[in-house]
Amino acid sequence: MTDRPLDVLEETLGSEVNVTLKGGEMYDGVLAGYDQHMNLVLEEGDNVTIIRGDNVVTIQP
Amino acid sequence: MTDRPLDVLEETLGSEVNVTLKGGEMYDGVLAGYDQHMNLVLEEGDNVTIIRGDNVVTIQP
Amino acid sequence: MTDRPLDVLEETLGSEVNVTLKGGEMYDGVLAGYDQHMNLVLEEGDNVTIIRGDNVVTIQP
Amino acid sequence: MTDRPLDVLEETLGSEVNVTLKGGEMYDGVLAGYDQHMNLVLEEGDNVTIIRGDNVVTIQP
Amino acid sequence: MTDRPLDVLEETLGSEVNVTLKGGEMYDGVLAGYDQHMNLVLEEGDNVTIIRGDNVVTIQP
Amino acid sequence: MTDRPLDVLEETLGSEVNVTLKGGEMYDGVLAGYDQHMNLVLEEGDNVTIIRGDNVVTIQP
Amino acid sequence: MTDRPLDVLEETLGSEVNVTLKGGEMYDGVLAGYDQHMNLVLEEGDNVTIIRGDNVVTIQP
Repeated sequence: MTDRPLDVLEETLGSEVNVTLKGGEMYDGVLAGYDQHMNLVLEEGDNVTIIRGDNVVTIQP
Repeated sequence: MTDRPLDVLEETLGSEVNVTLKGGEMYDGVLAGYDQHMNLVLEEGDNVTIIRGDNVVTIQP
Repeated sequence: MTDRPLDVLEETLGSEVNVTLKGGEMYDGVLAGYDQHMNLVLEEGDNVTIIRGDNVVTIQP
Repeated sequence: MTDRPLDVLEETLGSEVNVTLKGGEMYDGVLAGYDQHMNLVLEEGDNVTIIRGDNVVTIQP
Repeated sequence: MTDRPLDVLEETLGSEVNVTLKGGEMYDGVLAGYDQHMNLVLEEGDNVTIIRGDNVVTIQP
Repeated sequence: MTDRPLDVLEETLGSEVNVTLKGGEMYDGVLAGYDQHMNLVLEEGDNVTIIRGDNVVTIQP
Repeated sequence: MTDRPLDVLEETLGSEVNVTLKGGEMYDGVLAGYDQHMNLVLEEGDNVTIIRGDNVVTIQP
């Protein structure tokens, strides 16, 4: 009930997330990694996408 | 009467908040977490949304 | 005559302020809290609004 | 001839300045305070305006 | 499965990547270098391009 | 031949410079001061202009 | 093959570079200096241009 944002990301590793960016783009994929800037690594099949954290608006597990 | 912003967020944990973002979006939900950057975790039913703090304009408990 | 900005905010606690934001919005309320980033807590009757400081243009006591 | 910007602000305390902001707004007033972020306190008669430094383009004493 | 973003960049050194920037530009090339800001060095034949990290939206190995 | 940017500013003190800003404005004057953020002090006759460094695009001695 | 971005800048000192900025401007010149923010000094004949690093998109040696 009182998880900090990075704790929620940690618990979400290996699960599907939906990410929205400031430019309006949306990315779906399995959250394969993150860091304290909310830089993200998403995997969708064989495709890996690194997202620079300062573009992120929301992350929905 | 003289609560600092993060103290108010701390007291708001577990309660409903309304959040407005720079892009004009609004999010409602129970505030389930936050950190010093105002990164937020909102819960609405089964849905969890992590909001990156630099998008936040206002948070209204 | 030579108050630093955060000193003026400190003296303004509990008084009415008018805040303008980068998006053009204006907020009125009693300044109930602030921090070094100019994150603000405004109270207007029963309504509390936390404003993330990086949105602030001006604060007028 | 080789004053650093904050030294010039220090010398300007108590004098009239003209401030231009990124949004195109202009503010006139007596410089009553500043800090290292160029957050400013302007006084014009009984009116006090705190300007968050990241909005500032130019300050002209 | 739980690689951090900079670890994925490290593993990608010497391989082809596709980079998208905030301005909408896309760059393809072999990732020849990076740093913790996600500043990047791309090589395409004899051409070298240094990209300042704060422009990066996504990097796809 | 390998001067760092702030060294070039140091050597330019007391000389005429042309400054372009992100908003498209141009300023001419004698460089009377600077700091590590590229905050600048320009003098043109009796007029002094402090420019907040984050607005600067180019400085041409 | 695995040069970090600032190492590539170091090796490029004294050579011609092409720089693109966020505003769309392009600058050509000999790279005469840089620092860790990617602030740059370009020389073209007798003309010296200091570019504030946060404007830079790409640098091509």
